[in-house]
Amino acid sequence: MRHVRFRDPAGAVREGEHHGEHVSFGGRDYDLSAVDVLPPSEPSKVVCVGRNYAKHAAERGEDVPDRPLLFLKPPNAVAGHGDTISLPEGKETVEHEVELGVVIGEQCRNVAEADAEDVIAGYTVAIDVSNRDDQDREQNWVRGKAFDGSCPLGPVAADPEHVPDDAHVELRVNGETRQSSNTRHFIFSVPELVAEITQYMTLEAGDVIITGTPEGVGPLADGDRVEADVEGVGTLAVDVEQE
Amino acid sequence: MRHVRFRDPAGAVREGEHHGEHVSFGGRDYDLSAVDVLPPSEPSKVVCVGRNYAKHAAERGEDVPDRPLLFLKPPNAVAGHGDTISLPEGKETVEHEVELGVVIGEQCRNVAEADAEDVIAGYTVAIDVSNRDDQDREQNWVRGKAFDGSCPLGPVAADPEHVPDDAHVELRVNGETRQSSNTRHFIFSVPELVAEITQYMTLEAGDVIITGTPEGVGPLADGDRVEADVEGVGTLAVDVEQE
Repeated sequence: MRHVRFRDPAGAVREGEHHGEHVSFGGRDYDLSAVDVLPPSEPSKVVCVGRNYAKHAAERGEDVPDRPLLFLKPPNAVAGHGDTISLPEGKETVEHEVELGVVIGEQCRNVAEADAEDVIAGYTVAIDVSNRDDQDREQNWVRGKAFDGSCPLGPVAADPEHVPDDAHVELRVNGETRQSSNTRHFIFSVPELVAEITQYMTLEAGDVIITGTPEGVGPLADGDRVEADVEGVGTLAVDVEQE
Repeated sequence: MRHVRFRDPAGAVREGEHHGEHVSFGGRDYDLSAVDVLPPSEPSKVVCVGRNYAKHAAERGEDVPDRPLLFLKPPNAVAGHGDTISLPEGKETVEHEVELGVVIGEQCRNVAEADAEDVIAGYTVAIDVSNRDDQDREQNWVRGKAFDGSCPLGPVAADPEHVPDDAHVELRVNGETRQSSNTRHFIFSVPELVAEITQYMTLEAGDVIITGTPEGVGPLADGDRVEADVEGVGTLAVDVEQE
């Protein structure tokens, strides 16, 4: 099943099922064009992983880390499928990073790698929108990575059986492919990430881990249309405007 | 007024008033010992400021930043007055940092310095519990600063008129004074911080900004009792245990 949160034509928020061209809840079907697709959960935090693909670390001129490089996006960063995200004002370089997102299903702490699948509700697509002007000059990537709208998520949380371990990951800007890779190139696996993160912090149901981006990151500009795919999940699309 | 969130003897969460030895809500008074004092708000994020006192930057061997050094603590980090916080397992140096906390009163973005007081609901006391083992070896201070219980807040949100611009800030461990300073030594003022942060992110009602710690940080150990004061707010006390 592919779980979708949406606002129905009456304005009510529903947690239903995504069937491609329509969504359903409570025995009713809605055409996709009639609803507003929301982020697949309301995370209390998004825990993010940097440099989890060797070729992306290389293009950023950085070494591969010896343990997961973690950073945080708060709820203000979250956006949904179909939204228009704003590039922060006065920045020269704001880039796209497509990522596999892991939606957590239950409150958990100190999860062993072998038990990680028990706490995963599903997978989603994430775009880590990155303001390099600030990221490259601050210790913690707050201005760089935690600004409003910097974490589009969606369109669904797909049950884990839909998403293979070697899922294709791709991002297009205005129809042109910019990133194309596969999660088999992860340096740290999803279970390793869940174990490492929950050694320090409790994850809540709805929290999201985004797992790092492959090579091919590049700039976004006013008017761009971004489409991001993860095999088995679907396509997350957002429009870009200059703030 | 000093606003306090507490759990009453029946288990209900109340937002009442703190009168020193008792709290009140809905025309009823409760002895402090009969209630469980909760954090003064439920922040969606705590935005933290590093090196905002020159003498603390010096004791950490760091320069004073040319703009606020920002980092984040998610909701899992928050603890309340009277709670017992756990030091993360296997770390040599976990330190206390007392700070003035700013509780935001309304959703806001792009707040000018001159308007900052309009979005401030009150002030609280914060302890930024810092795991130096990890902080000193990671890019973003996630393991170092965002672990469970690393952000005690409380006991109240005091209306701004109670807290002078030159508020005394102090922290004691087992009755011994470790930190003693004054917010007049801030490098960046509260209005400057509100303006800088809201240039990038929307703050929500209940979000908290913690404003940096003065010199005198030092290690915590199993069994310690920590008391932290901000003039005009009161005393936030927590017990420490080794996880």
